[in-house]
Amino acid sequence: MAVLGANGRMGSEAVRAVGAAPDMELVAALGRGDSLEAVLDAGARYVVDLTVPDSTEENVRFAVEHGLHAVVGTTGWTAERLASLDALLAEHAGTGVLIAPNFALGSVLASAFAAKASRYFESVEIVELHHPDKVDAPSGTAVRTAQLIAAARSEAGVGPSPDATVKQLEGARGADVEGVRVHAVRLRGLVAHQEVLLGGPGEQLTLRHDSFDRASFMPGVLLGLREVAAHPGLTVGLDGYLDLGL
Amino acid sequence: MAVLGANGRMGSEAVRAVGAAPDMELVAALGRGDSLEAVLDAGARYVVDLTVPDSTEENVRFAVEHGLHAVVGTTGWTAERLASLDALLAEHAGTGVLIAPNFALGSVLASAFAAKASRYFESVEIVELHHPDKVDAPSGTAVRTAQLIAAARSEAGVGPSPDATVKQLEGARGADVEGVRVHAVRLRGLVAHQEVLLGGPGEQLTLRHDSFDRASFMPGVLLGLREVAAHPGLTVGLDGYLDLGL
Amino acid sequence: MAVLGANGRMGSEAVRAVGAAPDMELVAALGRGDSLEAVLDAGARYVVDLTVPDSTEENVRFAVEHGLHAVVGTTGWTAERLASLDALLAEHAGTGVLIAPNFALGSVLASAFAAKASRYFESVEIVELHHPDKVDAPSGTAVRTAQLIAAARSEAGVGPSPDATVKQLEGARGADVEGVRVHAVRLRGLVAHQEVLLGGPGEQLTLRHDSFDRASFMPGVLLGLREVAAHPGLTVGLDGYLDLGL
Amino acid sequence: MAVLGANGRMGSEAVRAVGAAPDMELVAALGRGDSLEAVLDAGARYVVDLTVPDSTEENVRFAVEHGLHAVVGTTGWTAERLASLDALLAEHAGTGVLIAPNFALGSVLASAFAAKASRYFESVEIVELHHPDKVDAPSGTAVRTAQLIAAARSEAGVGPSPDATVKQLEGARGADVEGVRVHAVRLRGLVAHQEVLLGGPGEQLTLRHDSFDRASFMPGVLLGLREVAAHPGLTVGLDGYLDLGL
Repeated sequence: MAVLGANGRMGSEAVRAVGAAPDMELVAALGRGDSLEAVLDAGARYVVDLTVPDSTEENVRFAVEHGLHAVVGTTGWTAERLASLDALLAEHAGTGVLIAPNFALGSVLASAFAAKASRYFESVEIVELHHPDKVDAPSGTAVRTAQLIAAARSEAGVGPSPDATVKQLEGARGADVEGVRVHAVRLRGLVAHQEVLLGGPGEQLTLRHDSFDRASFMPGVLLGLREVAAHPGLTVGLDGYLDLGL
Repeated sequence: MAVLGANGRMGSEAVRAVGAAPDMELVAALGRGDSLEAVLDAGARYVVDLTVPDSTEENVRFAVEHGLHAVVGTTGWTAERLASLDALLAEHAGTGVLIAPNFALGSVLASAFAAKASRYFESVEIVELHHPDKVDAPSGTAVRTAQLIAAARSEAGVGPSPDATVKQLEGARGADVEGVRVHAVRLRGLVAHQEVLLGGPGEQLTLRHDSFDRASFMPGVLLGLREVAAHPGLTVGLDGYLDLGL
Repeated sequence: MAVLGANGRMGSEAVRAVGAAPDMELVAALGRGDSLEAVLDAGARYVVDLTVPDSTEENVRFAVEHGLHAVVGTTGWTAERLASLDALLAEHAGTGVLIAPNFALGSVLASAFAAKASRYFESVEIVELHHPDKVDAPSGTAVRTAQLIAAARSEAGVGPSPDATVKQLEGARGADVEGVRVHAVRLRGLVAHQEVLLGGPGEQLTLRHDSFDRASFMPGVLLGLREVAAHPGLTVGLDGYLDLGL
Repeated sequence: MAVLGANGRMGSEAVRAVGAAPDMELVAALGRGDSLEAVLDAGARYVVDLTVPDSTEENVRFAVEHGLHAVVGTTGWTAERLASLDALLAEHAGTGVLIAPNFALGSVLASAFAAKASRYFESVEIVELHHPDKVDAPSGTAVRTAQLIAAARSEAGVGPSPDATVKQLEGARGADVEGVRVHAVRLRGLVAHQEVLLGGPGEQLTLRHDSFDRASFMPGVLLGLREVAAHPGLTVGLDGYLDLGL
């Protein structure tokens, strides 16, 4: 394995996690300015890219061109970049790339479960809770979860969540993301947390995910590395590697 | 004991609860149109008023004028009405009246604890959750809790909860009640629930109250009846009867 | 539709729910002692059995023999009874029977999600919470959930949840159900609640289900009635009718 | 201020916290082997002891003998040591010592609130949740909370929590600490968490504390330092410094 972006916060966690995994061998850890050739010299067959939006595309294309599988946590992959990478992968049969915006297994599972469950309940809302230094509200994860839920409900023909509110203080009922209400709490001491609340007559289902630490991303990165060779071509989202069917 | 408003939803619960209490005797249960004289005829020494805003003042004044203690759950007590009742009680030493907007012990305790705790934490927010047929958001209880918290923090010289949000979807950060953020969730299946979330470096304190059933008001009504004679004069709020000091 | 056991607690809820469903027509509601022939006379094509263990087998066999689909919430179906019913259904192609120990959609979903997710986390435990009049601990649902989790982890080759406890007060770590720790809380005011807690490095996933009211079973009964004709033969468990794959 | 045990995990946090407090000045930070005289040389008027059970008594007595106030987080204070310290303090009027087993404000508040509230509810149980490397179950904090609750209920004449369990898997109902059921969950990813669940007819009150990080102890240490001079003599427990009355 080679880790790119090894000096960053996520990268240094990955160096530690890969180093500690009994079934993996870390052969290269590259920082900003290091030449990609070092990955080949070290004999790596897998690359973990945890760099920056400006360099991730070049890194991943380099890996694919040399037949290396890649697991990518860097953001900045526009639809155009993805299409271009997809075309490149078509020329390199057998090489796999996983690009995942979120490597926390619990978060990916919670979103998938929320979308599945949402068609069976009258009501659904999201409460996300983060530390107070976060600049955007709601979180990107909460917006994506709401979109997944909205799509699942629309496909199943489920109507909007009931709401008799006629008198409200501005903002009390949260933000409206494609018909799903999303509330953002900001609290000192917290890291990153999300609850999807689903309600029907006489019952409630709550799916909560707590991220306490960046360490939460590492099991997902390792799972990606273990599975990427078995998934040639481009996969976007860790859920593509999870066995979620019944 | 005499229950006024005995045919209403709360009143019929009270009839049942007083009837079942081993240390109480229900001697009268009056509905709309029944004469108040029946309370005297039955020899009641305590009155529970669970009627409507239009008749509660007359009922309570009648009780006080006849030396009966009163426990009152009816709304509609303006500052003016309260002042007038206070004056009447001054002429009837030894008679006690408890007027409580909320008889759920857990809710009263949660609000009192929240106010106490809020001066020791950097951050505080409220999430209230109710059934989707509720017409106002946030709930009156949540607004009152926020006001108690705001007053306690102001008195202790605590600054506003930190919040770095610069980019938000409208409503994501909830309603602002005197500087305290309040979020209102509406979900089929729920009854009435509230969480006060307090956060400081590395820790969180959560005070949650769940009201599943109107039965939750009865222990508070019975506690009021047991204590009202020992608290002559006017008491507003059940917390006045609770031993919350340390 | 015909409801059998219409005077019981669940049965009367079902009478109400079927009566209120816009796409269903209630043609018969039978109590103890009523003749099953009334179902045929009324022209019912579907039967809901919410009777007692002693009569459910006869009721369901009667239904199948007359080509009626059946949705069954009564307990008492031993492996022997199920095998015998299965054989009967083989002679009645096109007739469907759903036998479900639990019709609360949220509970069924929570158990299925818990089993799915449990292979991706180091640790998993269950906390179930019920009213204090319950005579058994842990609940049957908690035991079944633990068994599903144990089977899923075993199949995926996941080891036992880590536990360094060397010194404990008896009972502190809960009951051991096939290697999964289960804790049973009993609290006045509660109905039926369950949390499955899953933990990995730096993260937690919580799946919580709250049953506040018997009404929670009705959406599952109605879903069963809408789907049973499309599932000929015997189905045990409502999850067989849910679209849980991805 | 002088910090003793400055190289330990808690001590180094305290060095950072005192250094960052605008109203405090850190004049000495001593590690193992450093002479206590350095505290006097540096002109400290307050000492924070975060050392080890073997040296804390000597450190604190040294401080008191030189008229320095002390805030102590080290364990190992037996009843005998406390009595001896109390006697010493009687000879040094005006000097204050705070010995606190727990400096997390939220935890101290949660325990105090739990004891207060427990006399108003029929049922009370505790669920504590920790990382799986913990060797004892339940936690010391949970045991102390249960004892406080048991004492409060006993004093108020409240009977035991109702429990109809007649059939249980061994351990399902948790450990019995003076009549209060305590359940201990162990889960990878967690730090230290505790819930006190209180239930009455139709309602539940939940008091939850989450400790995510050792940083959670620092606001309590700083509060102790700010208040210790105003509390001459010996105080055991941070709650003695909190304004919890109403």
